[in-house]
This record gives sequence, C-alpha cells and structure tokens, in this order.
Amino acid sequence: MDEARISLRIELRADTLLGPGKVALLEGIRETGSISAASRRMGMSYKRAWYLIETLNAAFREPLVEKSKGGKAGGGARLTATGDAVLDGYRRTEASAAKAAASEVERLSTLLKPRED
Amino acid sequence: MDEARISLRIELRADTLLGPGKVALLEGIRETGSISAASRRMGMSYKRAWYLIETLNAAFREPLVEKSKGGKAGGGARLTATGDAVLDGYRRTEASAAKAAASEVERLSTLLKPRED
Repeated sequence: MDEARISLRIELRADTLLGPGKVALLEGIRETGSISAASRRMGMSYKRAWYLIETLNAAFREPLVEKSKGGKAGGGARLTATGDAVLDGYRRTEASAAKAAASEVERLSTLLKPRED
Repeated sequence: MDEARISLRIELRADTLLGPGKVALLEGIRETGSISAASRRMGMSYKRAWYLIETLNAAFREPLVEKSKGGKAGGGARLTATGDAVLDGYRRTEASAAKAAASEVERLSTLLKPRED
C-alpha cells in the first residue's frame, strides 16, 4: 500500500505563495539548466513557467532564476544563490512538517475504508 | 507585518486528498449544522459541496457527514464521530506541521524583498 504524503503551501505573505508547483519548477531549472525543459517535463507552458518565475523574482530581495546568455546551449537558465536557498529551505520545511505530521497522518489513515484489492 | 502561514494537503491515498477546502467545509457544517449554510459562507455552490462530501463519505469506513431529517430546520446536516475525528485530526496535523516548520519559514521570510509601506 502507498504511504500517505503531505504537501505544503507556504504563504510567506498574502501575495507570495510557495507551493509544490513553483518549487518543482525551480527544481527542474536546477536540474535541466533550462526553463523550457523544466516546464516541458511538468506539462506546463513556457508562458506560465515564465510568469511564475517573474512573480518569484519580484518577491525576493534577489531574483531566484537568471537567464544565462551564450554558451553552447545558447541561453539556458539557472538558480541564483537565493534560488538555491529558497528551494532548499522549502524542502527542509516540507521534511520537518512531514516528520511532525507522520503519526497523526497514520492515525487518519486507519479511518479509511480498506481497499478492495 | 503578517505572520507567514502554512497550509497542508494530506494525500491519504492517491484518490483521497484532504486539504484546506474540504476541511473548511467540514468545519462549516459542524458550526452551522447545514450544508447550504456552510457552502454559502465559503462562496461554494451547494452542488460542489455535496460532491466533496460524497467523495469523503465514500473514502472512509463511516460517512463523515450525515443529513438529519425533520426538526424545526427541516433537514440539516452534522458531522458523525468519524467526521469529527477527521476534522480534529487534520487540525492537529496542521498545528504540528506549522510548529515544526516555523523556524525554516521564518528564515525564508528574511529573503523577501522588504515591503515598501
């Protein structure tokens, strides 16, 4: 049987939400070095991805994502130090929350109808 | 300045998600004794509320919400013992997670651009 899981939405301010979608996008950019590759693997349009990045970049002291010009790929993107800090901070927050929630989530799971398979 | 907050989505199973919307609906029913009053105060249609309730009722061993017939109000609704347990369990999970996440969330907040006001 699958493990129960939690996901987290952090409202840093009324207008600044950090949740699974934006964080997966940051992670994709870190891993692929490209906004289009990161958005494609999430099934998200480039336009939507760029909108989310601009929103994040505007909310923090430093941008989280910067476009890199030139090089063989001719214009990839990468996380700044602040981008790394936000991504890693979210993942740590999520891990702490999941650990703290585990026993209650387990208790909630016992109330589910047993699977038929 | 506002406090940062987290909200939690618990995936008890692939097909059973418990998040802020469903939980607010359960809470509204507990407080108002009525599905229509609970959905109205959330700006949710009765049809949508009833769909969410049916989904929840089918996922757990016992229904979470039952309609009460008769009485002066002529047909309200209330939480069952399982409904109370799920609502209270979610709130406890959320509180544990928020407490565990607090210092990391605080650290993330320091990366935000200062407000102009």
